[in-house]
Amino acid sequence: MSSPRVTVWNEFRHEKENPKVAAVYPDGIHEAIAAGLRDFGLKVRTAVLDDPEHGLTTEVLGETDVLVWWGHRAHGDVQDEIVERVHGRVLAGMGLIVLHSGHFSKIFRRLMGTSCDLKWREIDEKERIWVIEAGHPIAEGLGEYFEIPHVEMYGERFDIPAPDTLVFVSWFQGGEVFRSGCCYQRGSGKVFYFRPGHETLPIYYQPEVRRVLRNAVQWAAPSGGPQMTFGQRPQPLEDF
Amino acid sequence: MSSPRVTVWNEFRHEKENPKVAAVYPDGIHEAIAAGLRDFGLKVRTAVLDDPEHGLTTEVLGETDVLVWWGHRAHGDVQDEIVERVHGRVLAGMGLIVLHSGHFSKIFRRLMGTSCDLKWREIDEKERIWVIEAGHPIAEGLGEYFEIPHVEMYGERFDIPAPDTLVFVSWFQGGEVFRSGCCYQRGSGKVFYFRPGHETLPIYYQPEVRRVLRNAVQWAAPSGGPQMTFGQRPQPLEDF
Amino acid sequence: MSSPRVTVWNEFRHEKENPKVAAVYPDGIHEAIAAGLRDFGLKVRTAVLDDPEHGLTTEVLGETDVLVWWGHRAHGDVQDEIVERVHGRVLAGMGLIVLHSGHFSKIFRRLMGTSCDLKWREIDEKERIWVIEAGHPIAEGLGEYFEIPHVEMYGERFDIPAPDTLVFVSWFQGGEVFRSGCCYQRGSGKVFYFRPGHETLPIYYQPEVRRVLRNAVQWAAPSGGPQMTFGQRPQPLEDF
Amino acid sequence: MSSPRVTVWNEFRHEKENPKVAAVYPDGIHEAIAAGLRDFGLKVRTAVLDDPEHGLTTEVLGETDVLVWWGHRAHGDVQDEIVERVHGRVLAGMGLIVLHSGHFSKIFRRLMGTSCDLKWREIDEKERIWVIEAGHPIAEGLGEYFEIPHVEMYGERFDIPAPDTLVFVSWFQGGEVFRSGCCYQRGSGKVFYFRPGHETLPIYYQPEVRRVLRNAVQWAAPSGGPQMTFGQRPQPLEDF
Repeated sequence: MSSPRVTVWNEFRHEKENPKVAAVYPDGIHEAIAAGLRDFGLKVRTAVLDDPEHGLTTEVLGETDVLVWWGHRAHGDVQDEIVERVHGRVLAGMGLIVLHSGHFSKIFRRLMGTSCDLKWREIDEKERIWVIEAGHPIAEGLGEYFEIPHVEMYGERFDIPAPDTLVFVSWFQGGEVFRSGCCYQRGSGKVFYFRPGHETLPIYYQPEVRRVLRNAVQWAAPSGGPQMTFGQRPQPLEDF
Repeated sequence: MSSPRVTVWNEFRHEKENPKVAAVYPDGIHEAIAAGLRDFGLKVRTAVLDDPEHGLTTEVLGETDVLVWWGHRAHGDVQDEIVERVHGRVLAGMGLIVLHSGHFSKIFRRLMGTSCDLKWREIDEKERIWVIEAGHPIAEGLGEYFEIPHVEMYGERFDIPAPDTLVFVSWFQGGEVFRSGCCYQRGSGKVFYFRPGHETLPIYYQPEVRRVLRNAVQWAAPSGGPQMTFGQRPQPLEDF
Repeated sequence: MSSPRVTVWNEFRHEKENPKVAAVYPDGIHEAIAAGLRDFGLKVRTAVLDDPEHGLTTEVLGETDVLVWWGHRAHGDVQDEIVERVHGRVLAGMGLIVLHSGHFSKIFRRLMGTSCDLKWREIDEKERIWVIEAGHPIAEGLGEYFEIPHVEMYGERFDIPAPDTLVFVSWFQGGEVFRSGCCYQRGSGKVFYFRPGHETLPIYYQPEVRRVLRNAVQWAAPSGGPQMTFGQRPQPLEDF
Repeated sequence: MSSPRVTVWNEFRHEKENPKVAAVYPDGIHEAIAAGLRDFGLKVRTAVLDDPEHGLTTEVLGETDVLVWWGHRAHGDVQDEIVERVHGRVLAGMGLIVLHSGHFSKIFRRLMGTSCDLKWREIDEKERIWVIEAGHPIAEGLGEYFEIPHVEMYGERFDIPAPDTLVFVSWFQGGEVFRSGCCYQRGSGKVFYFRPGHETLPIYYQPEVRRVLRNAVQWAAPSGGPQMTFGQRPQPLEDF
């Protein structure tokens, strides 16, 4: 297919309020993610929480093949109406990539149906991300594992439905493990949760992380299957 | 384990308003389902929509190992607060069995995260339910298939997440197929969707259907695993 | 990625012995399948059982991204050594598409680990193939279902591991259902079982069937993930 | 159901040749495992490689509901005929629990269809086994994780089909992760792979390990579903 049209959404609050975050992501996390995707030749636009309709108008979503989501502190400020709009688009085929603290976003919890809770710790420990399904498109171009030198830890139990495909499992220096790359089909849309990323750490500049994001966008793009239809079918397909 | 404590929940509106339904289920669909389960020696109580708190008080749910859910016309009358209460109980380990038109109940859609929509037709056609996973506990005591002579048809696309285990697939006389027995793990709770049943047809008296319901209750009962805990873990498990 | 290199393998015995088969597939089933794939611009070569090494030399397999397999009567004539060679290539990343009576081929049974047995009947009944996962790449360009007017029936229980993704379920006029499109990841390779096809019926000329085969080839092509390595790792990755 | 009849199979060579192993398992690994199961009230017999027919006669297997398998050095000495006999019994409904180095046993590789290879290291490092599916019966009675102080490490990529249910993931001190508790349905039989155990380490005396083995036996016991039948069905189920 032709190149998917990507929208990177960011809460974009930390960067304006916390100099430590602004030092790492001066133009916002969304711009760092978008830049990584553009380096692979993808068409990317961005949208942020404080845009009208959070930047996710019906028009924007209608022109979006894959939506990338970063949020953390302000999940509650995302309007339910916009969440339902995004949800409908995913079921209709739009891809969705949820990053790091987005595990607690309204849209991810809406799609998963569970609490999406987990354990966490901030001591800048090491993470080693192991590829569990080497044949999955999201693992393209990676080695058997890659490391992120300093991270916020996320640990199991991660309260999600068992993923359709588990691509990555993380090892943490402090003793935990985590399902870090999880693929789901929901309606006609593909959803990928990817753990790495934190507002105070330069993780979205790391080449392996950027590679995964690009691969995930390619994988999550709509695949042109049948439009699903529902409701009453008064006439049987076979004679009676 | 000891015998699971079952609560059968029914909307219980059709029976009071439609003589045709009352003729089939004079004491309500819940009592027909409960009677089938009691015949297997299970402890069963019932609850209905018009009870205070829909009969699903914190106390009742706290004493319920498996909740069976039948609803159709009045999904919208179920209070969101009660849906959240049931949802929390499922994540904490309570089993949930959702029947037939319950596919559109708030609790099932909340747990699935999708539209749960489907195709349907009422011409009293034949359904043949094939066992796909003969080794699953829910198939205990069945033959390779069983038939229901007159049913409302439900057809694919059934907009659900792919089940963790697909136990039954239905063949319909009119030309459709349907995933009729779907197992899910959500949080610490087990969820089973079972297609058969209709307010105007005596399906909940059929022995194979009653057998499946009993098997599903046994399967869905809490299994005594660890209590999941979440949140910050300031101290690593390993030395730094 | 660039266009996958396809090899279509056929037993090619029926066509030479049975005029009824030769009338439908005068150049062999492999050429009909290959022609359908070439119409989509794919690079396709063919190989048959009676070629030296069944046409599946190390060199040929080394230049094959996706292997399509059709066999029926002579599964036992395929040398075990060649089966192991194909098996090794699949685990290393080559895609494999197994068609119809290939369910009983040595290579499919080797990869599945089960009997791969099923029910069958030849009365030229109608089959209706329903798309269950509309968002899967193999469903690209299809409608919600398609029909094949005359087929050999295959019915459940199909003794396979539950597929990683179930894309199609068939309805048969005679009363059975079947999981007709089944995706598996095995090692680094992707495997797709697709039910349609029979030596005496012109099924491999039908546009929907050809479309599925093309989609399956695209999906099954190697995705460039890490080379898996195994064995002793005397040194830990972390200090002791 | 009534208590499952268990047979614990052991290669039983290390114990007779290596005093270090005999010191840990003086009566053989099988007796340590059997003792742990008997403490839970289960009926257990044992069989070893050097018994006639490896102790796995048709009669013994016919009286076995769940077979537990430990092997390491002598996988090649297990006769193919006996492997096929065990394989047939699993497909017919017998449970199979494969332990530790049994990942390379003929029967496990036969059932998985993949290489079942992995990474390994023997430096007596620490393992922490995390419960990923707290609601699965195999996690009954456990905490959120348990530790084994000294183990042989097994690391990903573990070349298995993605499990139907992933119950445990291990963290290793040296930096690896591993899918340590994997459930599969194969035919009518249930298969569980459980990583812990080593001939020179007292792991099969550890209470958490014994608890998992008991839970796995309960889970893997046959569940009384329909006998699967296969082959030609000349007559359709529906009129033509």
